[in-house]
Amino acid sequence: MSPKSYSLFLSFLKMLIFSALGLFVLQARAVGKLWLPESAVASVEVSMPAWEKSPGLDLAKQALMDGWQDHENSDIKLKISRDKRLSDEGYSLSPGCITAKTHQGLLYGVYEYLRRQQTGATLDLPFSNPSYQRRLLNHWDNLDGSVERGYAGRSIFWKGKQSMEPTAEDRERWRVYAAINASVGINGAVLNNVNASPEMLSLPVLKRAAAIASELRPYGIVTYLSINFSTPISLGGLKTADPLEPEVVDWWRAKISEIYSLIPDFGGFLVKASSEGLPGPGDFGRSHAEGANMLAGLLKPYQGIVMWRAFIYKPDNSDRAKQAYEEFQPLDGQFSDNVIIQVKNGPIDFQPREPFSPLFGALQKTAVMPELQITQEYLGQEHQLAFLGGLWEECLQSDTYQRGAGSTVARCTDGSLFNQSLTAIAGVSNIGTDNNWCGHPFAAANWYAFGRLAWDNSASASEIAKEWLILTFKPTQASEKNLTSDEHPSSEGNPGTEPNRSPKEDTALKHAGEEWEKEFLQPVLSMMLKSREAMVNYMMPLGLHHLFALDHHYGPGPWYDAPGQRKDWTPPYYHQADAYGLGFDRSSRGSNAVAQYREPLRSQFNNPATCPENLLLWFHHLPWEHRLQNGLSLWEEVCRRYDAGLQEARRFQLVWDSVESWVNSEVFLRVQAKLRRQARDAQVWKDACLLYFQSINQLPFPEDMERPVHDLEVLKKTDMRHYMNQ
Amino acid sequence: MSPKSYSLFLSFLKMLIFSALGLFVLQARAVGKLWLPESAVASVEVSMPAWEKSPGLDLAKQALMDGWQDHENSDIKLKISRDKRLSDEGYSLSPGCITAKTHQGLLYGVYEYLRRQQTGATLDLPFSNPSYQRRLLNHWDNLDGSVERGYAGRSIFWKGKQSMEPTAEDRERWRVYAAINASVGINGAVLNNVNASPEMLSLPVLKRAAAIASELRPYGIVTYLSINFSTPISLGGLKTADPLEPEVVDWWRAKISEIYSLIPDFGGFLVKASSEGLPGPGDFGRSHAEGANMLAGLLKPYQGIVMWRAFIYKPDNSDRAKQAYEEFQPLDGQFSDNVIIQVKNGPIDFQPREPFSPLFGALQKTAVMPELQITQEYLGQEHQLAFLGGLWEECLQSDTYQRGAGSTVARCTDGSLFNQSLTAIAGVSNIGTDNNWCGHPFAAANWYAFGRLAWDNSASASEIAKEWLILTFKPTQASEKNLTSDEHPSSEGNPGTEPNRSPKEDTALKHAGEEWEKEFLQPVLSMMLKSREAMVNYMMPLGLHHLFALDHHYGPGPWYDAPGQRKDWTPPYYHQADAYGLGFDRSSRGSNAVAQYREPLRSQFNNPATCPENLLLWFHHLPWEHRLQNGLSLWEEVCRRYDAGLQEARRFQLVWDSVESWVNSEVFLRVQAKLRRQARDAQVWKDACLLYFQSINQLPFPEDMERPVHDLEVLKKTDMRHYMNQ
Repeated sequence: MSPKSYSLFLSFLKMLIFSALGLFVLQARAVGKLWLPESAVASVEVSMPAWEKSPGLDLAKQALMDGWQDHENSDIKLKISRDKRLSDEGYSLSPGCITAKTHQGLLYGVYEYLRRQQTGATLDLPFSNPSYQRRLLNHWDNLDGSVERGYAGRSIFWKGKQSMEPTAEDRERWRVYAAINASVGINGAVLNNVNASPEMLSLPVLKRAAAIASELRPYGIVTYLSINFSTPISLGGLKTADPLEPEVVDWWRAKISEIYSLIPDFGGFLVKASSEGLPGPGDFGRSHAEGANMLAGLLKPYQGIVMWRAFIYKPDNSDRAKQAYEEFQPLDGQFSDNVIIQVKNGPIDFQPREPFSPLFGALQKTAVMPELQITQEYLGQEHQLAFLGGLWEECLQSDTYQRGAGSTVARCTDGSLFNQSLTAIAGVSNIGTDNNWCGHPFAAANWYAFGRLAWDNSASASEIAKEWLILTFKPTQASEKNLTSDEHPSSEGNPGTEPNRSPKEDTALKHAGEEWEKEFLQPVLSMMLKSREAMVNYMMPLGLHHLFALDHHYGPGPWYDAPGQRKDWTPPYYHQADAYGLGFDRSSRGSNAVAQYREPLRSQFNNPATCPENLLLWFHHLPWEHRLQNGLSLWEEVCRRYDAGLQEARRFQLVWDSVESWVNSEVFLRVQAKLRRQARDAQVWKDACLLYFQSINQLPFPEDMERPVHDLEVLKKTDMRHYMNQ
Repeated sequence: MSPKSYSLFLSFLKMLIFSALGLFVLQARAVGKLWLPESAVASVEVSMPAWEKSPGLDLAKQALMDGWQDHENSDIKLKISRDKRLSDEGYSLSPGCITAKTHQGLLYGVYEYLRRQQTGATLDLPFSNPSYQRRLLNHWDNLDGSVERGYAGRSIFWKGKQSMEPTAEDRERWRVYAAINASVGINGAVLNNVNASPEMLSLPVLKRAAAIASELRPYGIVTYLSINFSTPISLGGLKTADPLEPEVVDWWRAKISEIYSLIPDFGGFLVKASSEGLPGPGDFGRSHAEGANMLAGLLKPYQGIVMWRAFIYKPDNSDRAKQAYEEFQPLDGQFSDNVIIQVKNGPIDFQPREPFSPLFGALQKTAVMPELQITQEYLGQEHQLAFLGGLWEECLQSDTYQRGAGSTVARCTDGSLFNQSLTAIAGVSNIGTDNNWCGHPFAAANWYAFGRLAWDNSASASEIAKEWLILTFKPTQASEKNLTSDEHPSSEGNPGTEPNRSPKEDTALKHAGEEWEKEFLQPVLSMMLKSREAMVNYMMPLGLHHLFALDHHYGPGPWYDAPGQRKDWTPPYYHQADAYGLGFDRSSRGSNAVAQYREPLRSQFNNPATCPENLLLWFHHLPWEHRLQNGLSLWEEVCRRYDAGLQEARRFQLVWDSVESWVNSEVFLRVQAKLRRQARDAQVWKDACLLYFQSINQLPFPEDMERPVHDLEVLKKTDMRHYMNQ
């Protein structure tokens, strides 16, 4: 063996499941004090020279021992190499060997190797490097423990000002969190809400952040914070937060120095400035660039960065979809090289379907990073099943044409198209203190998918979903052997703390994976892959967007408006329904938002005949009788889509019931109950939108379409979060 | 012309609609101060000798003038005859001539003649006599103006003790009510609730009753009252109401004398005694016969009668379905000949489906009358469409075998089988102060159908439904000519006050009735005829009964029970669901209620293999895996039926929407909204019952059955009357 290779001789390992959720399972038990029994490894030989020790390497070794799936071979080498094809975090695999440039790379390689063992993929992989240097979760967690748009319990990081001292339980939860992230390649976490409290930078809070950072560090997770731009005033007692004012700069300099004294590898700041009422450089007559560059300059000596969000819009009469572009495009080239502009996937706000933001690739001298939303703010929250891999793939693979055909959003942001030394991607976390971490058992797939796409932005969402299902639900020999009732006391309603083993297990394992693939994997994978489009259909098909009830973003409110209400916060602003037709005219005859897209997209979007039908009403206000490609009128197609979405939601219930024997009964019942509500709420969405639009166009429903069962006037008075859910 | 014939020479009559609802329409306008314009008859020649005048004859003439449908012939004779085939109220028809023995018979003949004109039936009818002498509505109206099980507003008779003086509006409403009743042959009305207040017999109340009687009399409607058996105590101040106590008899004698002084043709008493907490002869150690006969003896000199209800059951462990029979059967022969026992159609209580009560025909020396429920207490109340003609036909045509095959309930009660000098039938009214009288626009069909079946207990429910639809919805030439917007101001949301004319009218009339029959009559008739079975399916199929939530009898409550709760008021008492199976065992191995039926019924009901499947769980507790004739297990069939009911309710929405152009828009929208709720509530019924039964049997749903969308635990906490109807 070479000095830099380590052989782990693994004989029979009593295995625990490995997988994203497998890890949840294994480790959430720790959090929940429900540890699985120690892995009873008969004999393990570990060769690991002392000089090569590191916490990361130890973790890699432990992950291998916990997750090994090969009962015939128990020999694996970990190897450090200078192979130029490998980036710092990259790895290559071959049967029995994992190679990387760094210990962190080895850890990622170990997880990938185990994943391939379990999914039956080839163990040969010449090399794998991440698409983005920085792959972050953004936690919209508040210091008081609440989570903005969080649907999985309280914050895992914050519990209020009175509870700043980390407990052992806190630390254990953070370690588990870090391990789960590392298993899918996530290497950064912004610990607090973009709507940031100035208190965030107070010493007690920074100390807790440092404690968190110390638990995340071994797993390669770098810690970042969101800041409030006026912190120098609120916390520092200054009279201004003007970024060009020396005393402000001094204040930030000292604060940054303090942060790095506590967190030496601190990653940097995420800034939501001059957006939705938050302070920003604009308040002092300065540009976004001036604000961002001031901070970036102070962070640079520490290799820190600034992630500056482009999510800004004003309550005026201009098209909200155009504003981020209009604000940031003129600033291209003015940002420091350690500033990166964080752009939401679509021009509005994480809707079930949007076109990609025209800012992608438009800023050619400025680093740009995509912000995706893992938490299902607009996609059914914790109540509904929506696999978002396809949504993100759709965005990442959208061709911007910024440098000709093939200039996908992925390539516009990962440095392969523009000379962008800093690359990153962020996902707004769906994580909370719920025992299963994410609220809906299938929501874990979105955490998983975000990590996988952040690592490889050309990955296939359907392959990712399949992977997740195998890792999460496929019965293993290990589980068969380990799971006796004595060893596994009640999981207390916590599907995340028990491997998803079914009563049918014995049979299942005899027929190996074949039966499982046919009976479980195929139907459930199909359901996952259809889930987002079903939701688009019953919520807002054909490019409709933001038809949500005010504030809560769960139920429908296409009618909502009120005197004095800010118009761009009302659905009628977005759908523009009238007796003539439906949709927001962003064509050259309307707001001309199409002009923010490159040719040939601009012309394609501008013409209803060539505009993709799934974005038709995003770009056009069309008459109800407008004919679609299938020959139906716009109104008929709107009706058909809403109803199709409802019918699909009902089919999901059948699919899930059909796999009952393959799933741990608690998880089964939990998902079953959620799918019930999904079908019920899909009906509410369909009824609310169709009855509302009908009240405007007075057109009959298609003859055979199943009719609404709710009354519009009742729905208008109803808070959909609680409707039918006493 | 003979002295006893009258020719009404009718030239062109600008016609008003004639129909049950047509009458509503025409006359409710009077009530609602929305009179249609006077009929502009160009020339009418009336020959009517003075000595033959009577209010009834005047009404007959007026009805002819108002309702005449024949634009080619305007010549009609009214003729009195001694034809022995005619009973006092009977009539015979031939083209241009209506013959009867009495003026009342002529009035009925006129209505029938006009009905046949409008429906296109033959005008030749050798004779028609009513099946029952007394054809009564029972109003469950309270003196305070409320209506027990009333779903159409307040009482049309009572407005509280402070409002005993009849207003002109009251009187007008009573006349319209009487006319509607007369048009379908109803000749009696019990003006107050069977749960009677002793106050009912106080002088101010009796005076108002007399005023009502005076308005009903010209239409041939006789007035009756419900009494409280302990009135001598409560109102009379006696110490007892023992029917054998002379002072009690004296009190009643004086009271009856007082009543007849106010209402000379008073019909008699309806008595609910010793039932559901009401006083009765049992309280004084006397039998039902002793109680009834005392009153009957006092009424006899005035030709008054006693209708004594058999609806009694005790809160003990015996099978409630058996108790009325057990109590009354031994008394057969002990009742006076002016007592008639009033028996609900089924042994329990107006359920969506019951077998006929075994009392029918079992009392062979005692007059028995059927009590049907027009108001939809257990069949969706004002919210759901259920045409009940079929339910009643099913009961009336049930063969009791009391005197061999062919001993139908109809024949057991109409005097054709037993020598019953007194015959009667009662329907619990669905009438209230709602502008359309009955709440649901289609509920009027049940009032209509009751009258038609009371007149002819062998009539076909489907023919009756067809008749009602033609009379109610078919566009007429008259309506075309009359309905201009000037003449018909807004009906203020009152579908009963405006003829149901459609915007398509002109076209419709050109194509005559053919198009209407195909596009409207066929689908809507089919919907009406399926409506009750659909409801049975989604509420309580296969003989299930009384699964209602406590008290309100609208929504499902199959789970309902509570400590100390009277068991025979809980659904589990009736469905007996357990891990083994479902249903109430009334076979010879169970309560042996089957023994109350005659052979061969007894054996047929006693054997699950021969018991009609639609009554299977009424008579049997069967295992979930019991095979039905279609090969499905009991559980599968229960599921299939509940789902079929829901799907049917959804189809009703499609049917109704398809006829929009044929219906007055207010009525259209009203029914549309009600069908929406019906489909919504059908889903609640299906979900509640299936999820509840599943919680007991733990069996999976059939693979392809559309799944419930509600949660059982949520439903258990929900008051279904208000659920989803804020």
